[in-house]
Amino acid sequence: MGNKVIIVTGVSGSGKTTIGKALAERLTYSFYDGDTFHPASNIAKMSAGFPLNDQDREPWLTAINEFIKEKLQSESLVIASSALREKYRKLLSAGIDAHSLIWVHLQGSYEVVYRRMSERKGHFMSAEMLRSQYETYEAPERGIRVNINQDPEQIIQQIMTSMQISKSDIGLIGLGVMGTSLARNIARKGFSISIFNRHVDGSEEGIAKKMAEQYTELHHSKPFDDMEGFVASLSSPKKIILMVNAGKAVDDVIGKLLPLLQPGDVIVDGGNSHYKDTGNRQKKLFTGGIHFVGAGVSGGEEGALMGPSIMPGGSRQGFELVKDVLLAIAARNELNEICCDYIGDGGAGHFVKMVHNGIEYAEMQLIAEFYSHLRYDQGKGPEEIADIFEEWNKGDAGSYLLGITTDILRYIDADGLPLLDKISDEAGNKGTGSWTTITACELGVPVPAMTEALFSRYLSSFKTDRSRYADIYEDDGDRVFIESKNLLHTYMFCRIINHYQGIKLIREASDHFRWQINTDALLRIWSGGCIIRSALLAILRKEWLNCHEDIMEHSYARNLINNNLGEIKNTVSTLSLSARAYPVTTSCLDYFKGMILPRSNAYLVQAQRDYFGAHTYKRTDDPSGVPHHTKWT
Amino acid sequence: MGNKVIIVTGVSGSGKTTIGKALAERLTYSFYDGDTFHPASNIAKMSAGFPLNDQDREPWLTAINEFIKEKLQSESLVIASSALREKYRKLLSAGIDAHSLIWVHLQGSYEVVYRRMSERKGHFMSAEMLRSQYETYEAPERGIRVNINQDPEQIIQQIMTSMQISKSDIGLIGLGVMGTSLARNIARKGFSISIFNRHVDGSEEGIAKKMAEQYTELHHSKPFDDMEGFVASLSSPKKIILMVNAGKAVDDVIGKLLPLLQPGDVIVDGGNSHYKDTGNRQKKLFTGGIHFVGAGVSGGEEGALMGPSIMPGGSRQGFELVKDVLLAIAARNELNEICCDYIGDGGAGHFVKMVHNGIEYAEMQLIAEFYSHLRYDQGKGPEEIADIFEEWNKGDAGSYLLGITTDILRYIDADGLPLLDKISDEAGNKGTGSWTTITACELGVPVPAMTEALFSRYLSSFKTDRSRYADIYEDDGDRVFIESKNLLHTYMFCRIINHYQGIKLIREASDHFRWQINTDALLRIWSGGCIIRSALLAILRKEWLNCHEDIMEHSYARNLINNNLGEIKNTVSTLSLSARAYPVTTSCLDYFKGMILPRSNAYLVQAQRDYFGAHTYKRTDDPSGVPHHTKWT
Repeated sequence: MGNKVIIVTGVSGSGKTTIGKALAERLTYSFYDGDTFHPASNIAKMSAGFPLNDQDREPWLTAINEFIKEKLQSESLVIASSALREKYRKLLSAGIDAHSLIWVHLQGSYEVVYRRMSERKGHFMSAEMLRSQYETYEAPERGIRVNINQDPEQIIQQIMTSMQISKSDIGLIGLGVMGTSLARNIARKGFSISIFNRHVDGSEEGIAKKMAEQYTELHHSKPFDDMEGFVASLSSPKKIILMVNAGKAVDDVIGKLLPLLQPGDVIVDGGNSHYKDTGNRQKKLFTGGIHFVGAGVSGGEEGALMGPSIMPGGSRQGFELVKDVLLAIAARNELNEICCDYIGDGGAGHFVKMVHNGIEYAEMQLIAEFYSHLRYDQGKGPEEIADIFEEWNKGDAGSYLLGITTDILRYIDADGLPLLDKISDEAGNKGTGSWTTITACELGVPVPAMTEALFSRYLSSFKTDRSRYADIYEDDGDRVFIESKNLLHTYMFCRIINHYQGIKLIREASDHFRWQINTDALLRIWSGGCIIRSALLAILRKEWLNCHEDIMEHSYARNLINNNLGEIKNTVSTLSLSARAYPVTTSCLDYFKGMILPRSNAYLVQAQRDYFGAHTYKRTDDPSGVPHHTKWT
Repeated sequence: MGNKVIIVTGVSGSGKTTIGKALAERLTYSFYDGDTFHPASNIAKMSAGFPLNDQDREPWLTAINEFIKEKLQSESLVIASSALREKYRKLLSAGIDAHSLIWVHLQGSYEVVYRRMSERKGHFMSAEMLRSQYETYEAPERGIRVNINQDPEQIIQQIMTSMQISKSDIGLIGLGVMGTSLARNIARKGFSISIFNRHVDGSEEGIAKKMAEQYTELHHSKPFDDMEGFVASLSSPKKIILMVNAGKAVDDVIGKLLPLLQPGDVIVDGGNSHYKDTGNRQKKLFTGGIHFVGAGVSGGEEGALMGPSIMPGGSRQGFELVKDVLLAIAARNELNEICCDYIGDGGAGHFVKMVHNGIEYAEMQLIAEFYSHLRYDQGKGPEEIADIFEEWNKGDAGSYLLGITTDILRYIDADGLPLLDKISDEAGNKGTGSWTTITACELGVPVPAMTEALFSRYLSSFKTDRSRYADIYEDDGDRVFIESKNLLHTYMFCRIINHYQGIKLIREASDHFRWQINTDALLRIWSGGCIIRSALLAILRKEWLNCHEDIMEHSYARNLINNNLGEIKNTVSTLSLSARAYPVTTSCLDYFKGMILPRSNAYLVQAQRDYFGAHTYKRTDDPSGVPHHTKWT
C-alpha cells in the first residue's frame, strides 16, 4: 500500500473544501486547498472580475502537481482543485502513478451552486465567473462522480464506498466444502468478497473461478488463484478468512500471505486448528502487527451456508475488525440471538470448538447406544425407532443430532430396505477427534463420556479382530427390555453428565490459561447453528443466566437425577446384561457415582503408591497437608 | 581419552612377547618387540655371549622412546622391553605423559625363568646372561606387577583388571531414591561405580559423598559433584546411567556430558522419559557417535535395589556395551530367568515402560474397586478384606500389587485403628500417568481400563466439587452383595481385558514404528521385579510360548470367560446398583462386549457423519471400498 492523493474537483461553490477537509479527516489524510497555490497575479485578476486564461493556469497547476508528487513520498493527501478541463487534470496528474490517484468530482446544476454561492460571504468569485466555469467544464471520464445535492455526510459515505468500489470487504482462502459454503453465506449477507483457491496442476485448476460461476451468490465475487492479486483486491485493513486444513497448510498459507500484508490487517483461521497452534500463531503474527483470530466454526456444510455457530478467539482487535462479517453470517437461535461472540485470547476459540467436538462424539455415540438397545435388545425396526426418536425430539431430548438420526433411520435404499443396514460398521474419526481427550489428560480433567465414544470408534475399526473373537466367544445375552420412560430419563441423565464434563473441561482450561471464558455467551453460541444444538443446551443456558454456574446445581439436573436415580441405575444395570456394549452410558453412571462420593477409594491407591514408590500421602487428621511416608512392612 | 602405551617389562624369558601380544590383541592395540630396536652391534655382542653395558643400551632405549612418542600420535600400543633398571625405564618413558603410560612388570624367580628358557629354542641369550639380568634388576616402584607363575590367561586378566584399577566400570548420575538404589545394586554385583549428584547450594550439597558413606555397598564407589572428575573416572568406552527427572533435566545433563565424551561411549537413560524424547535423543547423539539407550526401569525403590525389571531400547550397540551390567542387576523370575532384554530401536524401551505404567494404573484401581465392594457394599473391615485378598493371592489372582495391598490393609496406626482410614482420598498422579492414554489416542487404539483408572484419580482430586455434590445428590444405593467366587472371576476377567488392551497397544505401536518388539521377551521382563508382576502374566507367557500370540485366544482367557460370562455380567450388573463407582470394572465388560460384536453400531455414527459433514461412508455390499455419500433429506 503506497500513499494516495485524492483530488476533489468541481466548480467554485460545489463544496470542494468542505468535502475535501471532511474526507481527509475521515481517512487521516492531510488536506490542501489548491487555490492557495495561485500566484498573486492570478488572485488579483480574479478579484478584479477577470476570468483566468489557460496561460494563467499553467504555473498554478504545475505548482500543485509538484507539491503532490513531493508529498506522496511521505503521506497521503486530499487536494481540492476545480480542474474543470481535461487539460488541467492532465497537468495536475502528470507523472503520478494511476494507483496512487483517486479523482472525486463534485457535480451539481448551476442553479444549486449559484444559490449556495449567494449565501456565502467573503468569496472572491462572482456569478458571472461561475457561469464561465460551467461553460469551460469538460465532464471527466475517470473518477468518482458525486451529486452535491445531498447532506455532506451522505456525500462522504458515497465517496468512501466508491473509493473501494474495486476492493472487496473480505477475502476467503480455501474453497472446500466448508470454505465455499461460508463464502456463499458471506456474499449473501451483502459483503463484497474475494475468493482464493490454490492452483495444483491437474487436480485443483481454476477452482475459485468455477465456484464464482457455479453459485449465484458468488457471481459478483472476485475469484483468484494468484495470492498477490487476491490480496491486492481487498480493502484495507485487509481481512482474510482461512478455510484450509489444520496443521501445515495453515502455516504455509500464512507464510505466503505475510509479505503481502500490512500492520493492522487481520487473518481469521476458520478451520479446525489445534488451540495450541492458534495461540502460537497469534503471538508470532502479533510481532508483525498482524491480528490473528482463531475461530471455531461448527454446523457442517449446511451450517456454514445457512449460518454456523462461530467461536472466535485470539486477537480482540482482530475480532473487532471482522465482527460485522462474523455476526452477520452466524446462526441465530430461536430467540433471534446471534450465535457468535468473542471467546477469549490465544487459542480459546479453537479450544471450545475442540470441546464442542468432544461433546458431539459422546452425543452421537449415546444415540447409537440407545438405538442399539431398541434395535437389538428390543428387536424394533428402524422405522419404529424413528417414531420413538421423533417423539423424544419434541421434548427436552430434542436436538439436531436426534433429528438427523430420525431422517437416517427412515431413509430407504433403492431396494426398499433401510440404507442404514448397508453401511460399514467401521467408524471414521479425524485425528482431531482425539484432541479433546488428550487435552483433558494434559489438564487433569476427567472426560470419560467423550473418551469412551472415541474408543468405541477405535474399537469399531478393529474389524478383523472383532470377527475373529466373535467366533471364539459366545454371548447370547439376555433379551433385556427397558421401559421407554426409563430409557428417556437415562438418555437425558447421560447427556447432562456429558455436557457437564465438557463444560467442566472448558472452565478448568479457562482458569489455567486465564481466558475468562464467558460460559453464558458460549451456551448462546451453541444454541444455534452448531452440531450439538439442542433443547438441553437451551435449558442449561436458562439456568446459567439465573446464576447457577454449574450444571450439576441446576434444578433441571437435580430434579431429573434425584427423581429418577433408582430407575437410571436399574436401566444401566439391565443394559449390562445385554450382549450389546453401552460404554458411554455406563461410564456416565460410574462418573456420577464417583462425583458424589465424599470419600473415594483413592486413599487405597495413595497407600499403594507410597508402598512401592515412596510417593507419600496426606493424612485426613493432619490439616498441615505435609506429606507422610510409611514403612508398610 | 588419548592413546596409551603399555610397556611390558621383565627379564628375558619372562614372557614379555607372549603376554604383550595377547594383551595387544585383547585391547586392539598394536604390539612391538623392543628387542627389534637394538642396533646390529648390540645383537652381535649378545650373540657372542657378552652382556651389554649402559652405553650400549642408551641409543637402543632412546630409539624405542622416540618410536613410542611418534606412535602415540595416532594409536595405542604395547611395547615389550626388559627395562630392568630405573635408569632404563626413565629413558623409555622420557617425555611421555603419565596418563598415557602403563607399566606392566612380569616377575618370577630365577629358577622359574631359567627352566622356561632352557625349554626355548633359537634364543640368543645364555643362562649366564640371565643371571646377570637378575643382578642388574632394580624393582620398579610404579606399575602393575604380575607373577608369571600362572596361566597366560590369568596373567592377562590380572593386567586388565589392574589397568582399570583407578577407573570405574560404570557411572551413575542422579542420586534420588531410584538412582541410589540402582547404584547400590550395581555395586553389590561387583561392578566398580562412580556416582554423581549435582551440587545445589543449600539443598543438594555433597550428596554423592554422603551416599558413599551411608551405604556399605557404596563405600568403594567414587563420589563426585563435578562432572569432569566423574567422567574422567570412568574406563573407556564410558558407560553412564542417568537417573534424573524426565524432561529438561535429561537434556541438561546430556548437554553437560557431551563435551566430555568420545565416540563409542554410551548413555543410558533409566528414568521415565517420554518415548518420543528418547527416540529424538538417540538420533541426535548418534550423529556424534554416542550410543543412547532409553531403558524403562520398574520396581520402585525396592526393585531398583534388589533387582528391577529393565526394558532397554534405543541403540543396540549401546545396549551391548552395558548389557553385562543391566543383566546382572535385573530381577530374576521364579524360573531364574533374567528380567531384562533389548526391546527395540528408538523409544521402544520407554514405550513399553509407559504402557507398563498404564496397566499398573488399571491394576491398582481394580484392586481399589474390589476393595470398595467388600468394604462398603458388603461392610467388611480391612482385616477381613486382607484375609480374602491373601487367599486370592495364593492362586491365579496373585500379584505383587495384591500382596502389598494385604500389608496395607493390615497396617495398624499408633491409635490401634487401620492407618488406611486416615489417608487423604485425593490420589496423586505424575504427568507421566496420562502419557499412555494420550499415546493410545494418537495411535487410535482403545485403552478404556487404564483411562478410566486415570480419570478416577483425576476425579478424586476434585474434592471440593465432590463434597458439594454429595450435599445435593442422594444415592442410598443398594447394599449389593457378590459371591466371593463371582467376584474373583470378575476380577480376573477385568485383569485379562486390561492386559489385553496394554499389549494390543504395544503390538500396534510396534507395527507402526517398526520396532519388532518380541512380546514373549517382554512378558519375561515383566515376570519379575516390576510393579505389575503377577501369576497372570506368568500364565499369559506360558501360552504365548505355545504360539498363541493373542491373549484373547489363550485357553486361559477362553475358559475363564466362556465358563463364567453370565456370572461376570451379573456381577457388573449388580455393581451398577451400588452407591460406589466401578468405572474400570464396568468399562472392561463394555469393551469385551464391543470387541466380540461382529457388527457394531458404528454404522449409525457413520451415517450421522455423512449427514452433517459429508464425510462419506463405505457400503457392506460394495467390496470396492469406494466412499459413498447420500443426500439424506
